[in-house]
Amino acid sequence: MRTRAAVAVEAGKPLEIMEVNLEGPKAGEVMVEIKATGICHTDEFTLSGADPEGLFPAILGHEGAGVVVECGPGVTSVKPGDHVIPLYTPECRQCPSCLSQKTNLCTSIRGTQGQGLMPDGTSRFSMLDGTPILHYMGCSTFSNYTVLPEIALAKVRPDAPFDKICYIGCGVTTGIGAVINTAKVEIGAKAVVFGLGGIGLNVIQGLRLAGADMIIGVDLNNDKKEWGERFGMTHFVNPKEIDGDIVAHLVNMTKTPFDQIGGADYTFDCTGNVTVMRQALEACHRGWGQSIVIGVAPAGAEIATRPFQLVTGRVWKGSAFGGARGRTDVPQIVDWYMQGKIEIDPMITHTMPLDDINKGFDLMKQGQSIRSVVIY
Amino acid sequence: MRTRAAVAVEAGKPLEIMEVNLEGPKAGEVMVEIKATGICHTDEFTLSGADPEGLFPAILGHEGAGVVVECGPGVTSVKPGDHVIPLYTPECRQCPSCLSQKTNLCTSIRGTQGQGLMPDGTSRFSMLDGTPILHYMGCSTFSNYTVLPEIALAKVRPDAPFDKICYIGCGVTTGIGAVINTAKVEIGAKAVVFGLGGIGLNVIQGLRLAGADMIIGVDLNNDKKEWGERFGMTHFVNPKEIDGDIVAHLVNMTKTPFDQIGGADYTFDCTGNVTVMRQALEACHRGWGQSIVIGVAPAGAEIATRPFQLVTGRVWKGSAFGGARGRTDVPQIVDWYMQGKIEIDPMITHTMPLDDINKGFDLMKQGQSIRSVVIY
Ligand SMILES: [Zn+2]
Ligand SMILES: [Zn+2]
Ligand SMILES: [Zn+2]
Ligand SMILES: [Zn+2]
Repeated sequence: MRTRAAVAVEAGKPLEIMEVNLEGPKAGEVMVEIKATGICHTDEFTLSGADPEGLFPAILGHEGAGVVVECGPGVTSVKPGDHVIPLYTPECRQCPSCLSQKTNLCTSIRGTQGQGLMPDGTSRFSMLDGTPILHYMGCSTFSNYTVLPEIALAKVRPDAPFDKICYIGCGVTTGIGAVINTAKVEIGAKAVVFGLGGIGLNVIQGLRLAGADMIIGVDLNNDKKEWGERFGMTHFVNPKEIDGDIVAHLVNMTKTPFDQIGGADYTFDCTGNVTVMRQALEACHRGWGQSIVIGVAPAGAEIATRPFQLVTGRVWKGSAFGGARGRTDVPQIVDWYMQGKIEIDPMITHTMPLDDINKGFDLMKQGQSIRSVVIY
Repeated sequence: MRTRAAVAVEAGKPLEIMEVNLEGPKAGEVMVEIKATGICHTDEFTLSGADPEGLFPAILGHEGAGVVVECGPGVTSVKPGDHVIPLYTPECRQCPSCLSQKTNLCTSIRGTQGQGLMPDGTSRFSMLDGTPILHYMGCSTFSNYTVLPEIALAKVRPDAPFDKICYIGCGVTTGIGAVINTAKVEIGAKAVVFGLGGIGLNVIQGLRLAGADMIIGVDLNNDKKEWGERFGMTHFVNPKEIDGDIVAHLVNMTKTPFDQIGGADYTFDCTGNVTVMRQALEACHRGWGQSIVIGVAPAGAEIATRPFQLVTGRVWKGSAFGGARGRTDVPQIVDWYMQGKIEIDPMITHTMPLDDINKGFDLMKQGQSIRSVVIY
């Protein structure tokens, strides 16, 4: 069949909207009609050419929601008509990683997914002239119709709006999951969130959900103060507007009359800046503070600190897709949204048709959007 | 009163054995007759002048065992005749750190201890000409008699031999505790221990106690193979004798027919070398492997890695005094020794009188001892 898609023809060029060929699902695969898709920094990272593993031509997009239209042989967990969210981190429930019950990083199709291919080593997409087009993160939600492995689909309730829950396919789960699954934040905790973009705001609402007492947001842009407060931030710090060192400033803020050591119980880096990652670690409380790296750093960048920071009890860890098992946890996050436990609507600042998708990238690069969503 | 002590008169010079003055215990303090003391790398780190926080003149030593001889006003938890192990990490049970129940790093007397003073800001030691001599790590076990805060004494069973359990005051607890308290290693785990000195051997016997399946020791010295095996090591790797990268080699060793990702569940750095610390992190299993920094790095040295290592699920943490609460956990480790659950005797390779303490330092620097113990 044919479908309309925004194709990343080469690095550094705008996406091109065109008709492409899409083969039907093979064994274990599912065709999905994408109804809405968010535009994420990771798409831009790849499109810009900054991602050394980026491959072209490809159909980007990994934050979607849609409806199953056709199932390949052997598919049992979804059927046509089911509402689904594509998962760039699949959940096969059978590989060593899934069975360890200690990580969400399913490795069953990692190799082919990284090469832009379906698990059988081929692509379902091609140009009308027959040139193959690669998949992206196993999702390719910038196509109206796409094919995914069954294990990369979370089945969700049918009454949830596509143009909101698509954001659960990446940013919402990444932020909330880092709080709940990776850090396991407890009621009464003190936390610092570095970087108040979409991920940072979702970390903030995750902290609110977890019952944190002190939720400090750190951003160089004062416009983010209002945004943070909207989702539960209790204190805002602009590093440009304080005297002295940001780490000492944050440690001081978290002191109490009883605890004159200070430091956060949990910190979250949502910037991808390795200097900020170090600050986030060092702003943790001596003895137990944990710092969670969420942001994606530039290729080759390294984090550093004195080992004394670890020996005195700080813990450095990271989170991918919020530590969430996609098929198991994503439907629950959709429920939380429908129950009003978490908010998404105010974060979707812009919507547009597929034809205007490059405008969504521009808004993101200019820092004018929290999230742009393409509605098919 | 007067007591014999080995005094660190200045950095880089041998200890000087001399008579010194010792004032009696003030409120909350206890005088202890030290019966035996180990000689530790940390003493050498300070004596050499490499420790930027080292102060002189001081009475070093922090790994002792002895008998209470006199209690100052208000002391309730020990009495004359009690057998005790001095604690360089005290346990006050009342400070924010102790009450957090999340760290062993009691902060109640941290300030004065770091300055070589008792909690009231003065020293009990002086030269016979009246020149004050500083305490060291709150212990100063290189003096036959010493004064310590009550909160820095673990009361232990009276039938345990001083010349063995003194080692529990530092090395044994640091190694075993890192396994049990910091890493919380579970039965069946795969672990790698970098550096098979005294700490490394104690990590190995901690892993044996915890029921680890695979205990890989890594050392540049092949003589350590027999030592490691004596305490439970199952595999030995000399990085000089393998082809290629040590991280890839270790990851390969830990693969199974089912799990072709590989990597250790837990790794422990007992070298203090920041390059090795990075290898230890990167040899951890994707998704869940934890690396524990135990070794003390040179002043100013930094650890580094790509944040991708953390984002894909590896955890970097550290351990001080094995995460052990001294007054609560040290008596239990003494019991384990007396029950034969852990071994100490073979690790005490040399004993000597106080007059020969500098020989003990020489043996340690030359790598000829696992542990030298001074018996008073
Ligand atoms: Zn994304
Ligand atoms: Zn899996
Ligand atoms: Zn020591
Ligand atoms: Zn305390």
